[in-house]
Amino acid sequence: MRVEVFFTPHQVDEMYLRVKTVAVIDVLRASTTIATALHNGAKEVIPVATVESAMKIAGNLSSDVTLLGGERAGKKIEGFDLGNSPREYIAERVKGKSLVFATTNGSLAMVKARNAKEMLVVGFVNMTASVNFLPGRDLTILCSGRSGNFSIEDAVCAGMLIQQLQTSSDEELELDDAGDAAIALYKNHNRSLGKMLAASEHGRYLTEIGFGDDLTVCGAVDTVPVLPLLISNVVKLKSLERNSIPS
Amino acid sequence: MRVEVFFTPHQVDEMYLRVKTVAVIDVLRASTTIATALHNGAKEVIPVATVESAMKIAGNLSSDVTLLGGERAGKKIEGFDLGNSPREYIAERVKGKSLVFATTNGSLAMVKARNAKEMLVVGFVNMTASVNFLPGRDLTILCSGRSGNFSIEDAVCAGMLIQQLQTSSDEELELDDAGDAAIALYKNHNRSLGKMLAASEHGRYLTEIGFGDDLTVCGAVDTVPVLPLLISNVVKLKSLERNSIPS
Repeated sequence: MRVEVFFTPHQVDEMYLRVKTVAVIDVLRASTTIATALHNGAKEVIPVATVESAMKIAGNLSSDVTLLGGERAGKKIEGFDLGNSPREYIAERVKGKSLVFATTNGSLAMVKARNAKEMLVVGFVNMTASVNFLPGRDLTILCSGRSGNFSIEDAVCAGMLIQQLQTSSDEELELDDAGDAAIALYKNHNRSLGKMLAASEHGRYLTEIGFGDDLTVCGAVDTVPVLPLLISNVVKLKSLERNSIPS
Repeated sequence: MRVEVFFTPHQVDEMYLRVKTVAVIDVLRASTTIATALHNGAKEVIPVATVESAMKIAGNLSSDVTLLGGERAGKKIEGFDLGNSPREYIAERVKGKSLVFATTNGSLAMVKARNAKEMLVVGFVNMTASVNFLPGRDLTILCSGRSGNFSIEDAVCAGMLIQQLQTSSDEELELDDAGDAAIALYKNHNRSLGKMLAASEHGRYLTEIGFGDDLTVCGAVDTVPVLPLLISNVVKLKSLERNSIPS
């Protein structure tokens, strides 16, 4: 089983991903928020790259069952129903709803992977669910990063995913340089994910703008045990059957 | 003093670098080869992005004093005088010569940084010379990576540069996430740079195509104590005076 890691979505093009199983990681906060929304009963999440696309797609859907969610510069977009804090995505708000979701980094990475053979959304909160789904498949890990740059929290999460895949797999994983680096960074931070998040560039920014509590939510492991999977261009929950989609 | 790191040149654009002091790193092998060539008496190195540019520029220069160097897929380009192995760049070949230099990753990063306020070429072989030049300046480290992807050897070299800058500086360095990661990766590999190079994707490839001996040359620390600096669009040696260019 081969595992490759891209630390930023800009490194890779959409065509390359077409034949891949892609795990998109955006710890702060899109992965965490999407997992939370679906866990709390949202019907589906439609990741879009721009605010304009979000408005357009939402305009074509019934407003009774559609919510606009996302952020620019970490903050809720004007006219949107929800921002990008997982704490907003409670059952009372999202149950049964289709969520059109535009975030700066995570949505962009998901849009890039929308024609992938398979795409799943991974954060610390749904680590084990993701690991259980994956063994036996070659894997491309696409870190969302931050505005085209490296994010430590996504790299550490990629490292944790690889480490756990290695533990659960019978065969030795073949890693690229970035995969090796991700594991080393995970080992460097695994005893203090909260501290790592608090010290990260994105974590410090979120704290500054009043979302410090989100770091605790996003750094918790296996608290949202679901598997958000891309199915017909939208992200939905997949029941947690091991290797349930033929590869 | 702020230090930022880009693990691939694709993450950053030329305009952004205009006001920056940029350290370009391509351990395997452009940084090492350029330092070696200048140390062995080459007059200057002109990094170019494409083989076509190299041919064109060399065509405008006197063939007596010009050499074409570089590689595609690690191998010497047809019609070129030299490849990209530092072991080829001996005094007998390069003394007094202008070197037009086209490599896949390093040259590309250098071309991207050609309008930077300052640009220096850094590898393990000229680490201390680079560190001595830099204190007091904000720094952008541009890793060349490999075909747009992360390279462990460039990240580890970036980490060594930051670590040594930190040791030699009176003030605390301000690092971005990638800078923190680079230091962690350096600490992970600093006792075994040779092993790291041999296990790296690029190192394995070079070994496969017969350049395994280059890894020893490229992984040696401070064996080529020179400072290749961009001066009027070409890379030349700078005498090793501390802070010799006003910032």
